[in-house]
Amino acid sequence: MKYTLSVLVENHAGVLSKVSGLFSRRGFNIDSLAVGTTEDENISRITIVADGDEYVIEQLEKQLNKLIPVIKVRTLTEGSFVSCELYLVKVRCTAKQRLDIMKIAELMQAKIVDVAQNSITLQFADTSERFDTLTELLKPYGIREIVRTGTVAIEKDSAVKK
Amino acid sequence: MKYTLSVLVENHAGVLSKVSGLFSRRGFNIDSLAVGTTEDENISRITIVADGDEYVIEQLEKQLNKLIPVIKVRTLTEGSFVSCELYLVKVRCTAKQRLDIMKIAELMQAKIVDVAQNSITLQFADTSERFDTLTELLKPYGIREIVRTGTVAIEKDSAVKK
Repeated sequence: MKYTLSVLVENHAGVLSKVSGLFSRRGFNIDSLAVGTTEDENISRITIVADGDEYVIEQLEKQLNKLIPVIKVRTLTEGSFVSCELYLVKVRCTAKQRLDIMKIAELMQAKIVDVAQNSITLQFADTSERFDTLTELLKPYGIREIVRTGTVAIEKDSAVKK
Repeated sequence: MKYTLSVLVENHAGVLSKVSGLFSRRGFNIDSLAVGTTEDENISRITIVADGDEYVIEQLEKQLNKLIPVIKVRTLTEGSFVSCELYLVKVRCTAKQRLDIMKIAELMQAKIVDVAQNSITLQFADTSERFDTLTELLKPYGIREIVRTGTVAIEKDSAVKK
């Protein structure tokens, strides 16, 4: 099962290497990791998506809580959060195919960020399932490059029981 | 000056900790880091934005190239790439203020991803300058939480000299 961990840490050199070192020492591969500052620029949030069973994730959460620069760890439960990822995709595109790619972009709500003689680059922010759909649609043209940010997540206030 | 490094690495446990360890051993703070798989799922791309002078960045590039799981390092030069980041912002919002927040979202092309009794959550994909504008507009309502992915970048084909 996939778990999403949201880890608040102090924002200084070495924190990321401590956190990612903890995962690698346990031979634990990370599906996706995103790190950015929060509303307080002295604090960063690391969002980690990892595959594992409940026991392993619980152990990791405990170990993370023991690391000194870690302020808070939360495992987000399904349905209680919004998650999304940002993608940049460069697709081969002849002059004749431009309209096709434009239509796909419109349909999927992707944004065209660069147009060249033989390629178009799209920016897309959504879930990984929706991104799979987009890549299926673009595959016939030839995908040249994909850059993705890693998933970020935020708790839904609307899912909080009153 | 800010530099954007695009690092292709083998996708297995420990790579991220090696790369981030290299930065931290030099006391070198990373502004932003994003890691995700590429069009080939055995290969990941780490995009790093860091502050430093040309000499330091050159040294880092050399050191990164020596790490075994690193396949390729590229420092992207200004104007030759598209870069963007993904943000989730939770804003306080009373029933009366909902229309105001909706208008700001529309104006800035942010997407409303959650609405609760006293808050609205927006998803926004753009440059950090545009994000600064968005937070300025939202500040008066009270920003409760910001989650960001770190910057990703892709080379513009349109900027390649023929």
